[in-house]
Amino acid sequence: MSVTAAQGFEAAGTAAGLKSTGAKDVAVVVNRGPLKAGAAVFTSNRAKANPILWSQQAVSDGVVEAVVLNSGGANCFTGSFGFQTSHQTAERAAELLGVSAGDVLICSTGLIGTGDEQFRARVLDGTAQGVASLSADGGDDAAAAIMTTDTVPKTAVRQADGWTIGGMAKGAGMLAPGLATMLVVITTDAVLDAAQLDAHLRAATRVSFDRLDSDGCMSTNDQVTLLASGASGVVPDETAFRDALVDLCRELSAKLQDDAEGASHAITIEVRGAASEDDAVEVGRSVARNNLFKAAIFGNDANWGRVLAAIGTTDAEFDPYDVDVSMNGVRVCTKGGPDRPREEVDLTPRATHVLIDLRTGDAEATILTNDLTHDYVHENSAYSS
Amino acid sequence: MSVTAAQGFEAAGTAAGLKSTGAKDVAVVVNRGPLKAGAAVFTSNRAKANPILWSQQAVSDGVVEAVVLNSGGANCFTGSFGFQTSHQTAERAAELLGVSAGDVLICSTGLIGTGDEQFRARVLDGTAQGVASLSADGGDDAAAAIMTTDTVPKTAVRQADGWTIGGMAKGAGMLAPGLATMLVVITTDAVLDAAQLDAHLRAATRVSFDRLDSDGCMSTNDQVTLLASGASGVVPDETAFRDALVDLCRELSAKLQDDAEGASHAITIEVRGAASEDDAVEVGRSVARNNLFKAAIFGNDANWGRVLAAIGTTDAEFDPYDVDVSMNGVRVCTKGGPDRPREEVDLTPRATHVLIDLRTGDAEATILTNDLTHDYVHENSAYSS
Repeated sequence: MSVTAAQGFEAAGTAAGLKSTGAKDVAVVVNRGPLKAGAAVFTSNRAKANPILWSQQAVSDGVVEAVVLNSGGANCFTGSFGFQTSHQTAERAAELLGVSAGDVLICSTGLIGTGDEQFRARVLDGTAQGVASLSADGGDDAAAAIMTTDTVPKTAVRQADGWTIGGMAKGAGMLAPGLATMLVVITTDAVLDAAQLDAHLRAATRVSFDRLDSDGCMSTNDQVTLLASGASGVVPDETAFRDALVDLCRELSAKLQDDAEGASHAITIEVRGAASEDDAVEVGRSVARNNLFKAAIFGNDANWGRVLAAIGTTDAEFDPYDVDVSMNGVRVCTKGGPDRPREEVDLTPRATHVLIDLRTGDAEATILTNDLTHDYVHENSAYSS
Repeated sequence: MSVTAAQGFEAAGTAAGLKSTGAKDVAVVVNRGPLKAGAAVFTSNRAKANPILWSQQAVSDGVVEAVVLNSGGANCFTGSFGFQTSHQTAERAAELLGVSAGDVLICSTGLIGTGDEQFRARVLDGTAQGVASLSADGGDDAAAAIMTTDTVPKTAVRQADGWTIGGMAKGAGMLAPGLATMLVVITTDAVLDAAQLDAHLRAATRVSFDRLDSDGCMSTNDQVTLLASGASGVVPDETAFRDALVDLCRELSAKLQDDAEGASHAITIEVRGAASEDDAVEVGRSVARNNLFKAAIFGNDANWGRVLAAIGTTDAEFDPYDVDVSMNGVRVCTKGGPDRPREEVDLTPRATHVLIDLRTGDAEATILTNDLTHDYVHENSAYSS
């Protein structure tokens, strides 16, 4: 059910010719209210695509009527023409929906540099088609339309005490060329205002999408949007809502990791015993971004020396010679020295668990990543040529 | 001539059985004086191998009589036994040379975790063999003995006004598993004290080895050592000496880059128009560490969008929409938008030049890196298993 699981939302996914395969490539999500509250978080890359520049302005007043998303072109580094394309797309949707263009968010994903006249014409047509085919059952079509190299659509739903949260996601995990982008739209029928949505969304993405670090490359187009219709009439318990949102975001993150392009392992890096959560995140991320470690996991090699070499580059508080490392339940390193033989670790399953105990404090964090494979190199060297 | 090009040095390279191939694997470099001045720079990784821990202490008084280097084992994460191995190696050399163990530096390279009884016995034997076969012509043997996955020994020599600098290097570029390490020994017969050597060495490595960033992975064993014998009797012009040292270090860096394991392109990333040299380095390094960019170059794809996406993650001062990018002489991006078609760029030569003009200031820096290839993944996934 995706983004239409919650009451008050309609969605559609249509094929506008942006994908050469003829698959669906434009999604529209509309909030029918009564509330029209929205919040979004964006890529922190300073090189932001045109739809990001547009949406940052549009969401700033906390009112969001609709989101138009396209695959088949990132509309990034396409200059002022590209910005006008995002603007015109919002205007086209707004006109057809009878709302203000400033309340329509735009998301794009696909090859960087794509955003010519033909692209614009197809996005505008797709937007019109999408608005014409909006439906309270359109969530799955929308989830399909935002797919790029994804092999399956990713959706998740949580329900509690009269309210519902539903979401769709694409991308991330083993980022492909210009297809690197993670796009997420989450909807709820709970009664929450824009400031509440913003706080919940930032808290949830911080411990979910922000900790999915497949290849360390940051997209120009990442956007995660949360919309509230208030259609359930229920004011949720704030803690229960946040917990459900965190849970849903983690489910979507795991689905992105599982479908990571070219990956043969989905690696969960759990860091314990840190002096602070920031330290735990820094340590986990240093391992997630270490090509030598990632190549070793691809080779089913429980190479804990590369874990220690990676975390030794951080500023986190710990003694490299007082760190324990386990892989898939086998303690291969105790206090910075060898423990069980690495051959005892079975790395043939796709799901891989690396546990790092810094033995310094009580904080912890988990980072999700993937291995570095031949297929990753192939996909990312061959795609755009 | 390597480390024996300068007067006052002897060297040797012997086979002690550390390499399964039977190739040379222990090198000894001895300073016959009259000066015994030395300086060294070490990996900034907090997870430092035992030879690093030993050498940091040994060099601290500025007196260095000899350096013993081995390939075939990194002696890292091998606990106190491993530290004792480094200590015993220094003692063995010192005893045979009639000097103090505290004036003998130790360098090791090879697989992390290697450092057992057999390793120790072979290193000690190799050290004795090396001391016994020291020669004023032994520089090339020493350069061969420190090779790991290197396909050729790397040496360089500079001469001027009565003094000589010679050096040998191994490793780096497309780091292999435990073989990641860069080891460099440079000798000179100029009359310079330890403080002068230290200042010159830090200045030279900052603009040479520190700007070779093949795969972003920092070794536990990196060490660059500079020794002065004073045997020429010539006090060099400080500027001339530093320039020659910088030049020599850059030659060795380029040789490491050219021999990078698994690489099909040697990429020179030149950043111009930066507000500061630090900004230029940060920008260049962000590109050098971007897997998507590196995979694109492997695929002969002049994907400038990935360059902008990479530099957009930095804190350097510039406007992403006022940046120019050229590849191999073709301006593919002007002011953050498309210029010449990327198909015009010929990326078939191994030598690849990326020019990034930030159009902000007058500072510049050049970073050397390599592409991300199938062979890189293969070498680093398969090596230790």
